[in-house]
Amino acid sequence: MRCEIVAVGTELLLGQIVDTNSSWIGQQLALAGIDCLFQTKVGDNFGRIEAALHLALERADAVVVCGGLGPTQDDITRDVIATVMEVELARDPEVEDRIRTMFEARGRHMPENNLRQADVPAGARIMDQMPGTAPGLVCPVGPDGAKVIYAVPGVPYEMEQMVGGTVIPDLQRRSGETAVIRSRTLRTWGQSESGLAEMLAPYHDELEQSGRATLAWLASGIEGLKLRLTAKAASADEADDVLAREVAMLERLLGDLIFSTRDQSMEAVVLDQCRSRGLTLATAESVTGGLIASRLTAIPGSSDVYRGSVVSYATEVKFDVLGVAHGPVVSGEAAEAMALGACRVLGADVSVAVTGVAGPAELEGQPVGTIWAATCVKGDAAATSLRLPGDRERIRQFSTIAVLNLLRQRLIAS
Amino acid sequence: MRCEIVAVGTELLLGQIVDTNSSWIGQQLALAGIDCLFQTKVGDNFGRIEAALHLALERADAVVVCGGLGPTQDDITRDVIATVMEVELARDPEVEDRIRTMFEARGRHMPENNLRQADVPAGARIMDQMPGTAPGLVCPVGPDGAKVIYAVPGVPYEMEQMVGGTVIPDLQRRSGETAVIRSRTLRTWGQSESGLAEMLAPYHDELEQSGRATLAWLASGIEGLKLRLTAKAASADEADDVLAREVAMLERLLGDLIFSTRDQSMEAVVLDQCRSRGLTLATAESVTGGLIASRLTAIPGSSDVYRGSVVSYATEVKFDVLGVAHGPVVSGEAAEAMALGACRVLGADVSVAVTGVAGPAELEGQPVGTIWAATCVKGDAAATSLRLPGDRERIRQFSTIAVLNLLRQRLIAS
Repeated sequence: MRCEIVAVGTELLLGQIVDTNSSWIGQQLALAGIDCLFQTKVGDNFGRIEAALHLALERADAVVVCGGLGPTQDDITRDVIATVMEVELARDPEVEDRIRTMFEARGRHMPENNLRQADVPAGARIMDQMPGTAPGLVCPVGPDGAKVIYAVPGVPYEMEQMVGGTVIPDLQRRSGETAVIRSRTLRTWGQSESGLAEMLAPYHDELEQSGRATLAWLASGIEGLKLRLTAKAASADEADDVLAREVAMLERLLGDLIFSTRDQSMEAVVLDQCRSRGLTLATAESVTGGLIASRLTAIPGSSDVYRGSVVSYATEVKFDVLGVAHGPVVSGEAAEAMALGACRVLGADVSVAVTGVAGPAELEGQPVGTIWAATCVKGDAAATSLRLPGDRERIRQFSTIAVLNLLRQRLIAS
Repeated sequence: MRCEIVAVGTELLLGQIVDTNSSWIGQQLALAGIDCLFQTKVGDNFGRIEAALHLALERADAVVVCGGLGPTQDDITRDVIATVMEVELARDPEVEDRIRTMFEARGRHMPENNLRQADVPAGARIMDQMPGTAPGLVCPVGPDGAKVIYAVPGVPYEMEQMVGGTVIPDLQRRSGETAVIRSRTLRTWGQSESGLAEMLAPYHDELEQSGRATLAWLASGIEGLKLRLTAKAASADEADDVLAREVAMLERLLGDLIFSTRDQSMEAVVLDQCRSRGLTLATAESVTGGLIASRLTAIPGSSDVYRGSVVSYATEVKFDVLGVAHGPVVSGEAAEAMALGACRVLGADVSVAVTGVAGPAELEGQPVGTIWAATCVKGDAAATSLRLPGDRERIRQFSTIAVLNLLRQRLIAS
């Protein structure tokens, strides 16, 4: 069973809005075991929407078309579908009623053109879910309705209800597919994409040949390098068992390069480690300038572990607040003193600290990308030097995940 | 001149990554006056990438293909382009050299498969910009190279340099377009999208009728609400003059709701204000947890103004480090004490401070979205209460831009 996605809207092509709908629908299709081989964005133009739908119906069994169901003259998805189905539009009295009722319930005047949303191609079925004024449509196409177009609005929460409630179940019924597809995402830090590929080459080849599961990887910056295992089985439990065995295999092969087997961020993992050990955490940041703190505090519940940060951007703040000894601040000694200072000033059991050069200019004769990262665990500080690639923002991001990873490794070992 | 975009990567179809690259490229094409009528996502599959490129080349004069230039076996964009061009791949010694040098500079071992990135279709030109190990390619197609494929990596900062530096200028040269299209983006804070639309309605109607320029707006969260003016003229100078007149008109209509007429972020504007007044800046953050510091320090050159931050996430850090009086910490008094404490502890002339409730749970009986924002200018602290909508991350982001805007307004008035 193949299903394509066509996202309609000139604002998508112009980049005024990022098309997150297709990504979300793509996820749901993948999880339901339905192949999605192409996704297309097209503007609010009759001929081009028509061409996109014809092409998608040639290549696939089904198409989800998203957007262009609003009340304005720009919204022509209904009209195009009627042409593709070779039928007329007819006003649906039940939908008309629902739209009128919705406006009344909100105490708002209904502009007449809103009733365009009740115009439905003959032979199309209205989806049960209708959280807004745009009905979702199931539109059979061709002899015996062998293929199908699903039309859903571009408003994400309306679209999501319809795709989850009608589109996916209808596709599964049509496919007769009883297999269940499940995924697990692992995250790693400490090896490049190609380095990991080299380490995993024999396993990957063997896995592909066996057909037990598939493995894909993706470098994701501050989120780490993600590995995604996907398995198909007769039941969810069976698929989960297959995945658990492959995860165990990857853990043997990669050891503590893996920081999460459940798609958690590095900061979530470190917060969990601290929580389970009853440790409080603080940070002292120079080159990362608050990024580590910001990532940690983005996580709900971080307040029971995380004390705070001293962002010591100016050199005197390192000396005066954190107690760094006067001298070079891009150094292991400075990083260690910052980590100790963070624990002392902020009253924490453990800490991380980063100092270094994010650019654009070098500092203290050190080139851009020179980083000293330190951790402090119960009064014992240790620093490590890193050489990071990329521009200012990448250096800040890599420093953040790298220093948290150092603390993670120390906490595992302690 | 028509240019399509083909984004390559199975992870895009599966929704593991949202395709923001196509949106960004679409924006750049629109600004350059180049039509983009279709954008396609396709997986890492030879036949389907080939089909997508052929179709795009039929419909358009040029194609930007984004992604699939990495070093792994999945990365086959180079191979597909060679087939479409009907040429062979050949290893480019200069690119090979640059890749080896990049690895050496970082002191890292280069896996042999990285050299696949030096394989280039015969007749393709290497783009000058090469911030990573993947070269961008300009690939003429068909008799006399009448059409063209631009291949750029999927890493956004690499892609952006190549599209801005090579693709757009090359397309403009090919189009023979002599009219110049220029844009100015203004940013506002303090009015909703619909409020702004109401304020601008008569001006907007008059502008549209005159055809002097076009105006579009886009709510952009922590970046503010953006207004974009676009004008077409015989020369860049002439277009810039038109835009300058419209910007002056918008400044009269919107006053200090406009915080930048040059598409600067709020934090860049505040840093500039401090710099020009010879003031140093500090922050004290509770609910924003380092986000303000992180945004300020993301800007190169912030170190000559910005001293640092005390992220006082734990209540005791507010008391012990910042000198907040014992009592409720979601209050105007606490926010003012934090702002004063930031100036004192970090040795700064001015500061901002934020305390409040980002959720998920309420705090001190105050509902989620309750924020106290304070500014301190030369020893004089003042607090304002805000009620912000949305989830945890939106509350953190809106708090950040809102408190910086308060400081901006005080500095203008002072």
